[in-house]
Amino acid sequence: NWSANWKRIVAGVLTGTGAVLTYGLLYQEVEQADAGLPTTEKRSSLPVFSHDEISKHRSLEDGVWVTYKGGVYDITEFVPMHPGGNKILLAAGGALEPFWALYAVHDQEYVLEILSQYKVGELSVEDLKKQHNAKASDPYSSDPERHPVLRVNSKKPFNAEPPPEILTENYITPHVLFFKRNHLPVPQVDPVSYRLQVEGLPKGALTLSLKDLKTRFPKHTVTATLQCAGNRRSDMNKVKQVKGLNWGISAIGNAKWSGARLRDVLLAAGFGPEVAKWARHVHFEGLDKDVSGSAYGTSIPINKAMNEDGDVLLAYEMNGEDIPADHGFPVRVVVPGVVGARNVKWLGRIVVSTEESSSHWQQLDYKGFSPGTDWSKVDHASSPAIQELPVQSAITIPADGAEIDRSDETLTVKGYAWSGGGREVVRVDVSLDGGKTWQVAQLRSGDKGQPDEPSPPPGRAWAWKLWELTAPLPPDADELEIICKAVDNSYNVQPDSIPPIWNLRGLLSNAWHRVKVKVTED
Amino acid sequence: NWSANWKRIVAGVLTGTGAVLTYGLLYQEVEQADAGLPTTEKRSSLPVFSHDEISKHRSLEDGVWVTYKGGVYDITEFVPMHPGGNKILLAAGGALEPFWALYAVHDQEYVLEILSQYKVGELSVEDLKKQHNAKASDPYSSDPERHPVLRVNSKKPFNAEPPPEILTENYITPHVLFFKRNHLPVPQVDPVSYRLQVEGLPKGALTLSLKDLKTRFPKHTVTATLQCAGNRRSDMNKVKQVKGLNWGISAIGNAKWSGARLRDVLLAAGFGPEVAKWARHVHFEGLDKDVSGSAYGTSIPINKAMNEDGDVLLAYEMNGEDIPADHGFPVRVVVPGVVGARNVKWLGRIVVSTEESSSHWQQLDYKGFSPGTDWSKVDHASSPAIQELPVQSAITIPADGAEIDRSDETLTVKGYAWSGGGREVVRVDVSLDGGKTWQVAQLRSGDKGQPDEPSPPPGRAWAWKLWELTAPLPPDADELEIICKAVDNSYNVQPDSIPPIWNLRGLLSNAWHRVKVKVTED
Repeated sequence: NWSANWKRIVAGVLTGTGAVLTYGLLYQEVEQADAGLPTTEKRSSLPVFSHDEISKHRSLEDGVWVTYKGGVYDITEFVPMHPGGNKILLAAGGALEPFWALYAVHDQEYVLEILSQYKVGELSVEDLKKQHNAKASDPYSSDPERHPVLRVNSKKPFNAEPPPEILTENYITPHVLFFKRNHLPVPQVDPVSYRLQVEGLPKGALTLSLKDLKTRFPKHTVTATLQCAGNRRSDMNKVKQVKGLNWGISAIGNAKWSGARLRDVLLAAGFGPEVAKWARHVHFEGLDKDVSGSAYGTSIPINKAMNEDGDVLLAYEMNGEDIPADHGFPVRVVVPGVVGARNVKWLGRIVVSTEESSSHWQQLDYKGFSPGTDWSKVDHASSPAIQELPVQSAITIPADGAEIDRSDETLTVKGYAWSGGGREVVRVDVSLDGGKTWQVAQLRSGDKGQPDEPSPPPGRAWAWKLWELTAPLPPDADELEIICKAVDNSYNVQPDSIPPIWNLRGLLSNAWHRVKVKVTED
Repeated sequence: NWSANWKRIVAGVLTGTGAVLTYGLLYQEVEQADAGLPTTEKRSSLPVFSHDEISKHRSLEDGVWVTYKGGVYDITEFVPMHPGGNKILLAAGGALEPFWALYAVHDQEYVLEILSQYKVGELSVEDLKKQHNAKASDPYSSDPERHPVLRVNSKKPFNAEPPPEILTENYITPHVLFFKRNHLPVPQVDPVSYRLQVEGLPKGALTLSLKDLKTRFPKHTVTATLQCAGNRRSDMNKVKQVKGLNWGISAIGNAKWSGARLRDVLLAAGFGPEVAKWARHVHFEGLDKDVSGSAYGTSIPINKAMNEDGDVLLAYEMNGEDIPADHGFPVRVVVPGVVGARNVKWLGRIVVSTEESSSHWQQLDYKGFSPGTDWSKVDHASSPAIQELPVQSAITIPADGAEIDRSDETLTVKGYAWSGGGREVVRVDVSLDGGKTWQVAQLRSGDKGQPDEPSPPPGRAWAWKLWELTAPLPPDADELEIICKAVDNSYNVQPDSIPPIWNLRGLLSNAWHRVKVKVTED
């Protein structure tokens, strides 16, 4: 049963632009397939249809037909099984190629095998030629250049992280090394014609240019760590396969963000005591749009947005320079202490609302579930959208599998630690013996040898700590299991192990981080 | 070496009024020793001293002498070793009995043996008679009556908790069942002459009567759970002995507190933008005082006190009635989301300050440490005072060791879950097989069969959730290890096991809670 098979393989995966996620696990470098003109040898003896005929089949009532490389497919039966939901209807009556170019996950043998079950005909050679000549250009072709050191989890959309040992070389992560987590192609935004819409307030919409943002509101700078909800997902995959990009431990970075406070902008747009009575959420929409024209979007609770200590920024600078294209040029939201997904890049629209965002990313993704919950029984409404993240830490040096020379006598372990919600990391415990004994690491809030950044006020510790422990190499051990665990100032701690926090999307992976190293003789 | 022995036995224990803690473990019912007049037969041939002579020895320079039951002791050498610090000097030149009556921990054979090493003489019979006649009355004699169901961890001061299976019978904990955690005798406060001092603000001190508090400020009601930092300490004791009262899982309760908002009172007392520039902490002092006249005291950060969403109360009602004597009559502070120790009872004084409270309870207790930190190397300055507490849950039914009838077919597990800082518990996972598989429990915010209390705004979930899971009894198992673990809306989770969070004071014991039950045949 091919339908069931397909369902089993990709169920729940292709939801919206989450589409690229699982396949990133299997094929780390997904490239757009060449939609070239097939030779006539490959054509079957099935009926030949013209584009006009095919284009009549655009609904469940009339049947849903699509073309792919000159084949015609009646996928009506498959529509309700499409894990990406009814986005599939966007391709109805036409070619799949432009859509699959956007959601590169479809370039899989599995997908082609499933599709082949639905073949009902061949596209006329004349229309096939037309289609070929009108081939959609690669929507990712204008994505910016990236640094070659990045480890790419998905090329289209671009998702990549730096090597761990480089990550903690700097307290402030250089933008080229800062993890990239794009859901869609990077939009090209002209800073001069850029306009930000602020809506939902009684005065009506407020439209702000980049210059307005820079000149009408005080410039506020916040050092804040952003972390992807999927950071350390690879640790969950080791327990049991989850759905999502196989992030290592470096989907996290720390930067100095500057911009206007969201609070100031909302006040200027008419937020006042009357609005405070009904407003509950602030929506953010990006300028990165999928083929249906829907923008990436999410929301945060109003109290985070309006709290004077919330430090939510409409940031136009990262580390003292214009925000780079991959990080949201010209304006992104920075929601300190909150999961990366809410820090919307290429910000186009802000809406004050009584409701949470109804977007896919707010309602059907970025939520946590019990380890016992599988795709067959997941109820997204039962779980709150991730906002503040839990306490986290990881070992960046030494790398897992590294060899330590016994003659070194001491071992230096380094890493990062951070907690969401402005909770300051107050301690990192390190074990060299698999958790039997623990030593307290040195924490710092600045580059090595430089003074620490000033202590943040309570509840506003948005930036990570780097930590380091130098300890005698335990004698006689041939292998060490090194573990780190952090404690924040609410005394929340990381859980010991992954299986009890395992969840089907591999989010919130914050158990103790462990690396094993070998001790070798000179 | 008696000094070393003493040090080993009580090092770090007797700090301030933490004095009663460890010995509560050993002797759950400590009673004041009878300071009766000894017979002359017991008197030694050591020199006889008059009270006047003894009273000259009140300092390290002149020597520190004390009397106890007619014996005279030169404890000069012991002073630096006294784990309670220089409070011991309060007794210098006089009788130990009134102090030991307050700190009942001293009524231990060990302590008397140590003391005997320092004996230098006998008190003159004349002065001994005088002392006997002036014997201090029991400072705990006016403590209120308590409910007999409470499990007493210490009588003087009174520390007790309800049986777990009763604790979760009510969403709102009746005051008689609410855990009592007193550091000193319960002060007798006359509500008419009661005055609260508010100090440290530019207008000068504000003095408020109980009537002022009730009439000059809006009455605000908050349902908030209070938890002792030592709740579930007994679980840590099972791993390795810690210092402190051996609390079970019921040093937690949930009540409706009503009173004036601290914020409103501070604004009335002159808190304004100028004060906000320098103010960092708010100190609270109780009317419960030790023999030196120092009050129980702690502090909280100013942002918690002044935040409109902080909900800090100067509460005069608990569950709709005057606050009972054991819970702080006539006024206590309720700091929702924050460790019990900051919720100062019998509130006498509030001070706005640039600094944290310098009290013992802020600086030298109620802090967390790494499992590798022992009393020989603990540095209290290295660790922040506990404020917000981490996520917690426990199983109240069935009890550990209970027997389940196999013919029941289903098993119902009940408990509570709560997190500090206003973070709402969003899920409780329950395992019936020692953590291999997990089921999601039903949560409620009200009494069973009653509607839930309305959902709190984000960041203001101060009240616990009660939870319940009814599941088929696993077939064939003769014993079940039942585990619960909670998740809050920052997706913080409880750690798997106690040893990695073990700390020398046994605080913050929030690992998964486990009970074992036997399944028996009919």
